[in-house]
Amino acid sequence: MPKQKPSRCKLLDWRCKIATGFHTFMKSINLAEKLSTFSEHWQPRVVGQFNGHDLMVVKVKGEFVWHKHDDTDDFFLVLSGRVCIQLREGAVTLGPGEVFVVPKGVEHRPVAEDEAHILLIEPQGTLNTGNADTAAPRRVI
Amino acid sequence: MPKQKPSRCKLLDWRCKIATGFHTFMKSINLAEKLSTFSEHWQPRVVGQFNGHDLMVVKVKGEFVWHKHDDTDDFFLVLSGRVCIQLREGAVTLGPGEVFVVPKGVEHRPVAEDEAHILLIEPQGTLNTGNADTAAPRRVI
Repeated sequence: MPKQKPSRCKLLDWRCKIATGFHTFMKSINLAEKLSTFSEHWQPRVVGQFNGHDLMVVKVKGEFVWHKHDDTDDFFLVLSGRVCIQLREGAVTLGPGEVFVVPKGVEHRPVAEDEAHILLIEPQGTLNTGNADTAAPRRVI
Repeated sequence: MPKQKPSRCKLLDWRCKIATGFHTFMKSINLAEKLSTFSEHWQPRVVGQFNGHDLMVVKVKGEFVWHKHDDTDDFFLVLSGRVCIQLREGAVTLGPGEVFVVPKGVEHRPVAEDEAHILLIEPQGTLNTGNADTAAPRRVI
């Protein structure tokens, strides 16, 4: 069998590995791998940045606190498990591959019966509980 | 066996279904379901909004055009398949659950040997090719 010619992508991957400094600047973010590095609930980890926002992964279980963000929408993408976003007028239940955006100023409380994993996107400096006294510290991994 | 008491989330889901107008305002976005409604490649569909950005799903296959966005980072999350983001200095290959953010001003070209599905986030009005003559129209689903 003839030796397979590497695809352009494989070739570029190889080139990218040897380009000095390239990998520290340009690397993909594997969300599951990031999630495997910690176990606490409701303690988001910052895994990247996008247009002044933090990209964060978080493990959740149980009930969070009711809160709102007056200056930003709240982005949730469930990666595994099920999460219920309670709102004062009802609730939305999310499974893997489902997104929900809580509009700014809307009170909400995430709840998960069993552990679930979420991708969050919030402007840098957003307090996860909406309150400086109770917010989780910003942790970058 | 005693009848199981519905969990608070189920109860809230039921309440949310009967709250007038709630479902049109507050609904989750199932990314796979949205992707199942179209088949064209490189034609993003807007599925939601977040802080002035469009949340979009797109099916890709083959080579896109080299382009850059001078005013915005470019967010990619691969949902299925494999995507190679070529850059002038190398390339990054992404599988499901992997994110890559192309910094603003950086030339790039997405390439996929086989069909892949991606979640994109870009400020509303961003041209997907960086060029008004060749950009896909904004389609909301």
